[in-house]
Amino acid sequence: MVDSIRVYQIGLGDIGLAITSILVEREGYAIAGAADINPALKGKDLGELAGLPSGLDIPIQDSITALLSGTEADAAVLTTSSRMEDITPQVLELVDHGLPVVSTCEELVYPKRTHPELTEQIDSAAQKRGVAVLSTGVNPGFLMDFLPMIVSRISRRVEAVRVERVQDAGTRREAFQRKVGAGLSAEQFEKRVAEGNFGHAGLIASVELLAAGLGWQLDSASETIEPVVADQAQKTDYIAIEPGQVAGVYQVGKGIREGHEVITLTFRAAVGEPVSYDRIQMDGDPQLESMFPKGVPGDTATGAITVNAIPLVLQCRPGLRTMADLWPGSE
Amino acid sequence: MVDSIRVYQIGLGDIGLAITSILVEREGYAIAGAADINPALKGKDLGELAGLPSGLDIPIQDSITALLSGTEADAAVLTTSSRMEDITPQVLELVDHGLPVVSTCEELVYPKRTHPELTEQIDSAAQKRGVAVLSTGVNPGFLMDFLPMIVSRISRRVEAVRVERVQDAGTRREAFQRKVGAGLSAEQFEKRVAEGNFGHAGLIASVELLAAGLGWQLDSASETIEPVVADQAQKTDYIAIEPGQVAGVYQVGKGIREGHEVITLTFRAAVGEPVSYDRIQMDGDPQLESMFPKGVPGDTATGAITVNAIPLVLQCRPGLRTMADLWPGSE
Repeated sequence: MVDSIRVYQIGLGDIGLAITSILVEREGYAIAGAADINPALKGKDLGELAGLPSGLDIPIQDSITALLSGTEADAAVLTTSSRMEDITPQVLELVDHGLPVVSTCEELVYPKRTHPELTEQIDSAAQKRGVAVLSTGVNPGFLMDFLPMIVSRISRRVEAVRVERVQDAGTRREAFQRKVGAGLSAEQFEKRVAEGNFGHAGLIASVELLAAGLGWQLDSASETIEPVVADQAQKTDYIAIEPGQVAGVYQVGKGIREGHEVITLTFRAAVGEPVSYDRIQMDGDPQLESMFPKGVPGDTATGAITVNAIPLVLQCRPGLRTMADLWPGSE
Repeated sequence: MVDSIRVYQIGLGDIGLAITSILVEREGYAIAGAADINPALKGKDLGELAGLPSGLDIPIQDSITALLSGTEADAAVLTTSSRMEDITPQVLELVDHGLPVVSTCEELVYPKRTHPELTEQIDSAAQKRGVAVLSTGVNPGFLMDFLPMIVSRISRRVEAVRVERVQDAGTRREAFQRKVGAGLSAEQFEKRVAEGNFGHAGLIASVELLAAGLGWQLDSASETIEPVVADQAQKTDYIAIEPGQVAGVYQVGKGIREGHEVITLTFRAAVGEPVSYDRIQMDGDPQLESMFPKGVPGDTATGAITVNAIPLVLQCRPGLRTMADLWPGSE
């Protein structure tokens, strides 16, 4: 029996707390401490916050600095932000302390082209301290990028990849329904899009990660977002939607290579969507189609893959790694 | 532009020659030499044997020893045998020469429990020379073991895994149809089973590899084989099957853990099978189902994954590795 891997948790939102409950039930892991910037959580017990049947005797700290002055850990799980600007100083503080980091930050999943300077800062700091940093999640990080890369490894020649993730948002938690715009008017939807931080984050990161996994140099990666408009009234546990109001989002990420659209990622999450599924279609030799015919529940899967990535960061090469590093590309 | 990876090819059967044609069309690879024990092939040009439009100017050698005295290489692709007894001396000769090895030997995909002594010989020789040895293929090596392991990484808790690979053997090459017993009588089928080296090889290796990938210690792994009997006449390009004759095989591999059947791998390949598909079902949290609704063509996929594994053996830790080493288990 090896010693347990001691883990810090930073960021105690929905995903962070899902990870707490997985870490508690898994053998081989121990939570060494937890922190969140929300001052209302300071000093509360992590187990209580996570709704576990018994407490964990882990008082929540209000900063990474406070956490680092306590019990030592072997790795940090960082679930605080979707954005490189916000997460970079946090990653650097952990790395400078000698800690490998697993994150669910969407932009950090493949930031090299979108945020070259912050990427370089994290990568050089991590290499200097001999630790790895990796960001993952079910999407980005798995369904639309890593998994198609894995499927491509049985392909002699890949010409183009199309991935669809279609979900009935009516079965998801309220925060998710709000995030995809359920119940907004068309005008409100436009406004939220213009404000940013809306809809599914990480489509560009998925395009870039998949391209890297296929060994493809892209000319460009781009993204569009449109509302899915309800044609009949819909009602969830949280939101009532009138016909003509927004039921959800329809987002498309595209990767262009040598002038051709070779990557097309479609994310559609709307209340009332009749079927939830995930599908990969790969043109080439052979033609391949792979699917989850009933879809993949996002929150559980993101929590699971994040915990399952802890052994990866402990063994992979130092630096800012991506899921594509697991199996170097073939072109 | 990095230099091409120089590859030896040893074993020039159907899979070996499929690999030749992939290596020739891929950038970044160069075939440094080829060998096969069939004396009739000695001195022939590899490109001609592989049916390429133009020759390769690579005369086929009749032994590994002869190959090693020629042009140098960076890795060897070994597609000679399904059995550990046959392949071990070949692997050792290559490893002792300092060459990383990718193989498609079914038993070598996960030999630790079935062939502990030969495993130890290969592992210690490879570690001593600082090179890695890895065996893969579409099955075993991907569809029934590696891919379910990858899917399990989005699962919070896996309780049991069932994988089915169902194929219409009528669409495959003659050697495959013969191998699954198409056209035999029930008595001939029994006899061929008793003689061994019949049907799909590697089901036990898949059970063991998947268990390792899930971090499961099995009590036992076992395998059954039965004929699929034709209830109506079938005719392929190669074989005519009367009602009552064998159309193919139905093989089941099982893994038992703490008294429960937690792994069930079903391989069914028969002439006239109405639908070809590959399906993974995973009990736990969440329930997951993943499938290739139209199946995966075996020969192309095995050639592709073998070539795609070359970068893996060049970068992974020295020793006898398995596909499960790509992503260390979580239990």
